[in-house]
Amino acid sequence: MDKRHFTLLTDLYELTMMQGYHEIKDANRTVVFDAFYRVNPHGNGFAIAAGLDQVIEYVKGLTFNEEDIEYLRSTHIFNDAFVDSLRDFRFTGDIYAIPEGSVVFPREPLVKVIAPIMQAQLMETAILNIINHQSLIATKTARIVHAAQGDGIMEFGLRRAQGPDAGTYGARAAMIGGCVGTSNVLTGQLFDVPVKGTHAHSWIMSFPDELTAFRNYAKMYPNACILLVDTYDTLESGVPNAIQVFREMREQGIPLKGYGIRLDSGDLAYLSKKARKMLDAAGFPDAIISASNDLDEYLINSLKMQGAAITSWGVGTNLITSKDCPSFGGVYKLAGVRDDETGEWMPKIKLSENTEKVTNPGNKTVQRIYDKFTGKIVADLICFADETFPDTEPLTLFDPQETWKKTRLAPGTYTTREMLVPVFKNGECIYESPKVMDIREYCKREQETLWDESRRLVNPQEVHVDLSKKLWECKRDLLAEFHKE
Amino acid sequence: MDKRHFTLLTDLYELTMMQGYHEIKDANRTVVFDAFYRVNPHGNGFAIAAGLDQVIEYVKGLTFNEEDIEYLRSTHIFNDAFVDSLRDFRFTGDIYAIPEGSVVFPREPLVKVIAPIMQAQLMETAILNIINHQSLIATKTARIVHAAQGDGIMEFGLRRAQGPDAGTYGARAAMIGGCVGTSNVLTGQLFDVPVKGTHAHSWIMSFPDELTAFRNYAKMYPNACILLVDTYDTLESGVPNAIQVFREMREQGIPLKGYGIRLDSGDLAYLSKKARKMLDAAGFPDAIISASNDLDEYLINSLKMQGAAITSWGVGTNLITSKDCPSFGGVYKLAGVRDDETGEWMPKIKLSENTEKVTNPGNKTVQRIYDKFTGKIVADLICFADETFPDTEPLTLFDPQETWKKTRLAPGTYTTREMLVPVFKNGECIYESPKVMDIREYCKREQETLWDESRRLVNPQEVHVDLSKKLWECKRDLLAEFHKE
Repeated sequence: MDKRHFTLLTDLYELTMMQGYHEIKDANRTVVFDAFYRVNPHGNGFAIAAGLDQVIEYVKGLTFNEEDIEYLRSTHIFNDAFVDSLRDFRFTGDIYAIPEGSVVFPREPLVKVIAPIMQAQLMETAILNIINHQSLIATKTARIVHAAQGDGIMEFGLRRAQGPDAGTYGARAAMIGGCVGTSNVLTGQLFDVPVKGTHAHSWIMSFPDELTAFRNYAKMYPNACILLVDTYDTLESGVPNAIQVFREMREQGIPLKGYGIRLDSGDLAYLSKKARKMLDAAGFPDAIISASNDLDEYLINSLKMQGAAITSWGVGTNLITSKDCPSFGGVYKLAGVRDDETGEWMPKIKLSENTEKVTNPGNKTVQRIYDKFTGKIVADLICFADETFPDTEPLTLFDPQETWKKTRLAPGTYTTREMLVPVFKNGECIYESPKVMDIREYCKREQETLWDESRRLVNPQEVHVDLSKKLWECKRDLLAEFHKE
Repeated sequence: MDKRHFTLLTDLYELTMMQGYHEIKDANRTVVFDAFYRVNPHGNGFAIAAGLDQVIEYVKGLTFNEEDIEYLRSTHIFNDAFVDSLRDFRFTGDIYAIPEGSVVFPREPLVKVIAPIMQAQLMETAILNIINHQSLIATKTARIVHAAQGDGIMEFGLRRAQGPDAGTYGARAAMIGGCVGTSNVLTGQLFDVPVKGTHAHSWIMSFPDELTAFRNYAKMYPNACILLVDTYDTLESGVPNAIQVFREMREQGIPLKGYGIRLDSGDLAYLSKKARKMLDAAGFPDAIISASNDLDEYLINSLKMQGAAITSWGVGTNLITSKDCPSFGGVYKLAGVRDDETGEWMPKIKLSENTEKVTNPGNKTVQRIYDKFTGKIVADLICFADETFPDTEPLTLFDPQETWKKTRLAPGTYTTREMLVPVFKNGECIYESPKVMDIREYCKREQETLWDESRRLVNPQEVHVDLSKKLWECKRDLLAEFHKE
């Protein structure tokens, strides 16, 4: 597969700042940046982390080639010393991340970069672009899959995706989020995931009549004969012709398996129930009824409630563009500067009039607290990277905004898990991404660690994300310092 | 630049249908497909066609390499004869398209493919993916640029785009739609368009204080010194420190040009007016005030009405994801099959219970009718490709739905222009795409051919898209034929 060269996939200001840090040597100190988001998309109770594998590829390929260097020189924004120095650029830092397919919550670092600021700054835009996109689509998909109550969801959105990558990596994220397959053949090739699809209206229209088109399709694909029945008239023409073809297959002794019809327009509740009756009456009770046409989690939920006889769903535009919320809102913020002599972290904070937008300072990690008996998530704890929480001791959790809200966990009732894992160490990748279908399985198990109340589509119960006492005190002191000035 | 290999960027069903057309030789006849859309996005009065250059690259690169062939074989969906035949696949047909940057309207073919159905079918998904994405972003941008009433709009959305391509080709489309620059350096490199950007909050936070950060930035970039003033407190700290730095520059005899401040949070109307007064009072009346933070056409319009003192706008998420309408809805429909003996076209129609969804049959083109005196668009006429409308004759236009609505144009009062131009002929590309900045200029002129009433953001006047008499009669007859059956 082509390796993409994404070094210049960055905002110009990352490069203008880089030149600054290059010029002012003292300024190019080791720093820590966190990539996190503030609000769950779609009003969901959680998000699904995705995109790490592409971030890894990006970081591995982060070198300036001669074309890049000449292009930057041609802008007349940069001086020669800086531009020439880019020939030797490579990433030498550490990256930690929450594995793909994990359920995650607002304000938690999903990716943490520790590196000289020149390097860490350059990477901001591409890391956010990749993580924001794939986490968005994985989260949207998880909602749609949840609404389908066990029915298979197929990703059909490539033609409406925002460009080739949105279609291809979007389909990757959709598989992580729980789809059973995608129509996108390139995604199938790149990531070894199932590809799905049958035929379009144009197949029907290119034959003299619908029955001839169906017969020809059935002859070619007897093992997965799903016939699109709405080109002319679903109940008057499409379904009767499909039944005729299934009868002929049976008469010819062809074993009928994975066969059925697809509805792509009209009132899917009404048409599916009518079609179900017609197929059953004709002796095809196991014929599949699949449906597509502008579906999303709300429509699928509504069709399920109406008793629609659909068991397989193709979802396109609304999934692949995450239509009701087409951006994830992840940000990448400086959290600390290291004193390279002592190795001590000086925590940094970004103020805002909006309390929610004040960042969490320091070199941090995320500890997930599980109920020992149910395995469900009790809360996530954002803390400094060197803090430990032995489960032999009681643990007090408290709300970072409303600090009087406290929960005390007795020893032996909880387990902890550090969510951020090392991905790069001194510039070397030390992490191997699982296969997409394995991430998909993991993601399914991850969602089972949530209480049902946090999984519902509307007004889900929020999962607590608390700060450790030490982190909370550090933040309070930094805020007080600013207010003193 | 890397050539992308996009042959498998397609829905699986295109390939299953291809195998069908390959097996049933008679079925692989020359056909015509139209790519068109049905409804203007965002409630706009028009759309901007974009993406053709990437469609051309895609078609030029349309070959199956050994990896593709082995991958398809490994799916066990296809037979060896078909898979092996793909080694010889290349596009041999004709493509016509409306040039990028043109204003276009619903139901008009933007791209028309005439080729053996095996080829024309394969290309559906990628053509739609590319055209849908770029036309969407160009159209959204045109709205934002219109709202800014001549102020410059910068595209700042890469980090929130739906993957690398959405950021990169989205920025290309944004330039076509009228942006003055983009933050995306890769887009600058690929398409020779201006790149823009200064520094982030992290620049400020990485120095001991804001003033030191500003001074260091000014030293490095004296010619384009735009200082971000909202890291700590816009009016108490940011603007006074910026003024201090501008004073120091003046005292040092550094010519102040293209300098100013950027606001990225808070009440932009209030803050910009206050900052304007402070800058003016300090003797910097030409300091630029630029703004960003979740802007779109409605917010910019509202800020303009409130008298905000902003003259330069950075727009990110809402532009690059086209947030209020993140998909374009273009479709690709079979319109005719050619009798390869006689060369005659047999028109094809797709029925639907929704009249708007019934397709226009036959091998068509679009004639744009301009008022000879004002140069403004009177109407577009969808007609058969071989129809001519000499402007020495009177021309009758009539509404395809409400046929009693007629307009008669006298000879000498109108001019016509065929919108679809040849792009590929017998598989060879015969069209050279203009440079992006030239497309941008053309797009600006194109929008000037619209009446003001069709350009407004809310409830614009619809531009008439009519059918020729001959096409309308053909459609009527085909519909009657189906209803007889």
